[in-house]
Amino acid sequence: MNSSSQAIILFAHGARDPEWAVPFGIVKQQVQAARPEAQVELAFQDFMTPTLEAAVERAAAQGARRVTVVPLFMAQGGHLKQDLPRMVAKLREQHPLLEFRVMSAIGEAPEILQAISDWVSRGAAA
Amino acid sequence: MNSSSQAIILFAHGARDPEWAVPFGIVKQQVQAARPEAQVELAFQDFMTPTLEAAVERAAAQGARRVTVVPLFMAQGGHLKQDLPRMVAKLREQHPLLEFRVMSAIGEAPEILQAISDWVSRGAAA
Repeated sequence: MNSSSQAIILFAHGARDPEWAVPFGIVKQQVQAARPEAQVELAFQDFMTPTLEAAVERAAAQGARRVTVVPLFMAQGGHLKQDLPRMVAKLREQHPLLEFRVMSAIGEAPEILQAISDWVSRGAAA
Repeated sequence: MNSSSQAIILFAHGARDPEWAVPFGIVKQQVQAARPEAQVELAFQDFMTPTLEAAVERAAAQGARRVTVVPLFMAQGGHLKQDLPRMVAKLREQHPLLEFRVMSAIGEAPEILQAISDWVSRGAAA
């Protein structure tokens, strides 16, 4: 990887049930296919690994210079408003040479909400 | 409402932060616009109201005969595999004349996962 190497870390809540992670694995594959030059990783807040910290560690070890954290949460609650900023502040201290960016929750994206609404409207009519 | 009246109940996790519910309110409006003949309601598992039970009660009182429960959860974990089926089984007992249907989690819909992946890929590149 070169000096502009980017890591995209898809950050999800996590759950006890391993099957819970399946859709996030699909998103990871699709993002990796769309951005083959980036290092795309999953990370989890609870129950599953790697943690965000471990995923950032790994990205840095593999040469990433820019890290985009993408919270795969439906909406902004305490996890995204308090916990995640705290975690990212700590990561910035631990990795002063890395450039961090945090994207908004899925529910902030009109096109995703519309995709959800379309799917609900079609499915509920079936 | 007539005897074929349908209620669509968008069932979300809930959170302590009221702002968390905003995207779900947008989905509700969009689904209602797409399905003007249906009664579209939000319901929450925790922290927020109405509960699923209260939303079904209200739908039944307003003449619904068919209830479609749409879990607005990213993925299938304990909430959707254990808690929700238990809740729906109880609702079927409480409302024997209502026809219940439960849709799958958002993460089971390829078009929604693709919308998420597209948004991540575009946003992370910006």
